[in-house]
Amino acid sequence: MAKDKKLVESITSMQEDFAQWYTDVVKKAELIDYSSVKGCMIIKPAGYALWENIQHELDRRFKETGVQNVYMPLFIPESLLNKEKDHVEGFAPEVAWVTHGGQNMLQERLCVRPTSETLFCDFYKNDVQSYRDLPKVYNQWCSVVRWEKETRPFLRSREFLWQEGHTAHATAEEAQERTEQMLNVYAKFCEEVLAIPVIRGQKTEKEKFAGAEATYTIEALMHDGKALQSGTSHNFGDGFAKAFGIQYTDPDNQLQYVHQTSWGLSTRIIGAIIMVHGDDSGLVLPPAIAPTQVMVIPIQQQKEGVLEKANELYETLKKQFRVKVDDSAKSPGWKFSEQEMRGIPVRIEIGPKDIEKGQCVLVRRDTREKYQTALEEVPLKLAQLLDSIQADMYERAKEHRDSHITDAATYEEFQKALDQKPGFIRAMWCGDQACEDKIKEDTTATSRCMPFEQEQISDVCVCCGKPAKKLVFWGKAY
Amino acid sequence: MAKDKKLVESITSMQEDFAQWYTDVVKKAELIDYSSVKGCMIIKPAGYALWENIQHELDRRFKETGVQNVYMPLFIPESLLNKEKDHVEGFAPEVAWVTHGGQNMLQERLCVRPTSETLFCDFYKNDVQSYRDLPKVYNQWCSVVRWEKETRPFLRSREFLWQEGHTAHATAEEAQERTEQMLNVYAKFCEEVLAIPVIRGQKTEKEKFAGAEATYTIEALMHDGKALQSGTSHNFGDGFAKAFGIQYTDPDNQLQYVHQTSWGLSTRIIGAIIMVHGDDSGLVLPPAIAPTQVMVIPIQQQKEGVLEKANELYETLKKQFRVKVDDSAKSPGWKFSEQEMRGIPVRIEIGPKDIEKGQCVLVRRDTREKYQTALEEVPLKLAQLLDSIQADMYERAKEHRDSHITDAATYEEFQKALDQKPGFIRAMWCGDQACEDKIKEDTTATSRCMPFEQEQISDVCVCCGKPAKKLVFWGKAY
Repeated sequence: MAKDKKLVESITSMQEDFAQWYTDVVKKAELIDYSSVKGCMIIKPAGYALWENIQHELDRRFKETGVQNVYMPLFIPESLLNKEKDHVEGFAPEVAWVTHGGQNMLQERLCVRPTSETLFCDFYKNDVQSYRDLPKVYNQWCSVVRWEKETRPFLRSREFLWQEGHTAHATAEEAQERTEQMLNVYAKFCEEVLAIPVIRGQKTEKEKFAGAEATYTIEALMHDGKALQSGTSHNFGDGFAKAFGIQYTDPDNQLQYVHQTSWGLSTRIIGAIIMVHGDDSGLVLPPAIAPTQVMVIPIQQQKEGVLEKANELYETLKKQFRVKVDDSAKSPGWKFSEQEMRGIPVRIEIGPKDIEKGQCVLVRRDTREKYQTALEEVPLKLAQLLDSIQADMYERAKEHRDSHITDAATYEEFQKALDQKPGFIRAMWCGDQACEDKIKEDTTATSRCMPFEQEQISDVCVCCGKPAKKLVFWGKAY
Repeated sequence: MAKDKKLVESITSMQEDFAQWYTDVVKKAELIDYSSVKGCMIIKPAGYALWENIQHELDRRFKETGVQNVYMPLFIPESLLNKEKDHVEGFAPEVAWVTHGGQNMLQERLCVRPTSETLFCDFYKNDVQSYRDLPKVYNQWCSVVRWEKETRPFLRSREFLWQEGHTAHATAEEAQERTEQMLNVYAKFCEEVLAIPVIRGQKTEKEKFAGAEATYTIEALMHDGKALQSGTSHNFGDGFAKAFGIQYTDPDNQLQYVHQTSWGLSTRIIGAIIMVHGDDSGLVLPPAIAPTQVMVIPIQQQKEGVLEKANELYETLKKQFRVKVDDSAKSPGWKFSEQEMRGIPVRIEIGPKDIEKGQCVLVRRDTREKYQTALEEVPLKLAQLLDSIQADMYERAKEHRDSHITDAATYEEFQKALDQKPGFIRAMWCGDQACEDKIKEDTTATSRCMPFEQEQISDVCVCCGKPAKKLVFWGKAY
């Protein structure tokens, strides 16, 4: 049994060192590997299968709202990146520059896209002529590059995978509607599929996207009490349209500027899945997104009839579930550890004694509860179990999140809460960036968002004591 | 009616100028647009939807053979690219180089991947230790960059989308099996889904992939008689393994080098779909890959009951087919032209007179045949019709291909055939590269492949007259 435990023992416990626990899980669950290119990760089959399921589910939800997929070039000419002032200031310091093609130096440097607003604007400028051409509701799935100094798998890397939606509308109202609609798509996706509860709100001026009029965000709370920005949706108003000259003729034959939005969600969300649901045995995946939902593990598989029965079960279940059989030469204990490390929601143990009794044992990954189940009842029981796991994981994450929200009326309370109970802090704010700056300098916490559901929990700013304007969620963040 | 014809009239006819016809179709069917980055294309919704269907179907077929998807970095450090001599010689002249990250010059240049053999090798070097770790059968869907001088939409662009599979095996036999297996996956996909017949064969030494021991190819014939290499599969033997030091311990505890393969298919195949099936009215898409299979076009839609009936039909059909209704304000004639330009396999015309008779009219895109069909019979009739279209498109393409294969025993016959009847030429070859070079210089034709089905159609090389070793398909190619 000593050997069987090795896989588990090699993970640092959350309690001991959360950052090391995260790195251990990412590696041991075989989600990623490091590459020869500093700051760029290799997404291995188990990690990429998660991303494929995320893509599949999100893409379906996008298309239901009328989104069409396209593909824009990887490169942005420097002059194009420079067209919108705030945008270039936000991104130019962290882009990778291509200067040579083959043996020749390029006449103009090209940056590897850090995001594609400028490319979409350049395209819409020609593609949009009349109000009949609107709206444009385009999206692309691609990789982007940002030359970060400090990198961590999924959370911050020099290259990452994402989707970026870019839309153009005839009116400001329509753009605002689309901005909120997509934020809600993200929020529902996180809650329904990833079992991650999120706070929906607006970013402050300081924290908004470079070039946006308003940025909306969904913020999730990790197990260690830090926040993770999990998806953003931006309303650009007509700022980019004016910088790029994107105009259309309206029904009265007048030239008008379009109103634009963009919205993105990236492989970063995989970091959230790990840090919201994981435990000291490894990953815990919500059934709705798990590449493998059920692992059948035969016990004493060398005995006659065991493998046959395990495979029979597999054949029955595969029509309805994402199921595998682990019939490798490893010991059952080792297989259990692997299934737990990989976060597979349910394992089915089946051995000679079970077969004798016409049953098998279903084991939940999240709570480790065991259920002796008659073989003919497995499909029904499994369907119920997966539903329960999905629902329970959401509830547990929500309880954890809610029990880590502290209201602070004074700066002392604010600082004390941050020290003693990591999580979100709800506190009032005067609207002045100086207070955000001071809070960040004093505590490293940042304003995560001004939640859509506003309350007046105090009359004055938690930092400066001037009259309060907004309720803000604050927190230390990834 | 004059206005309705504009869309069609604006395409050059194939006969008049095939290259211009191709460019016109690509633009008018709204597959792509040009971008501000020279040689890079924007893939628009109609083009990307095609690629999504290709991905979906091919990915499913890959996974049935045990392929797992991963994602490798976009960048390759120069030192890594340089590790395999033939490979770097093949690719270094046409890569894009990143020299700066943010404000800083990089210590080592990074190339934007033109293909990812070196990255996979670098990964396998660490990931493969024991025979138990083999085989590795990985694939990625991504974009790659090759700094081409002359570019054409889909056929040759500086950035294109593709999949690249990279595998590592314990034995040479297993690598050879996988190489052939994936070529057959491509061939079947082309024939069954894209309705494009292909010749399967091996590339000559001159034409093989940089660093490969053997390259296999599927070659299709375009409407103008030019060949298009439509997918390739390479056996690397242990060449890369030796250059990168990828070794495993076998069951006898001996160190062995792995044997590797790679195989790729790109957005280039969309060029083949256009040039094999298209006609002077635009695209003609095989039903199996068409993003929209059926367009319902109401006639006199302002009349009571017409739109209702069209939508009713849509509701019935959408469970079984990819169907849309064009209820825009355009005239029916204009809608017909658009549906034809976009290559939608079937349109359904339904107007007041049809409704009175309880029928509608199904029109095939490929042959323009019309079928008056009782409304309740539409689902059945449509299913049959789409099957027929798919089968007939393949047969027509095969007839065209087969009638454009000429056997040449002498160099005179060879040159005459190339001049008078563009297509594949079957001719014997001595195996000497000098003859390939001479043929290319004299005629611009290249050896497309040595087909798997070999025959001895003459005893001597068509070029030099020395004893013949191989039957070769020759042709001018994209």
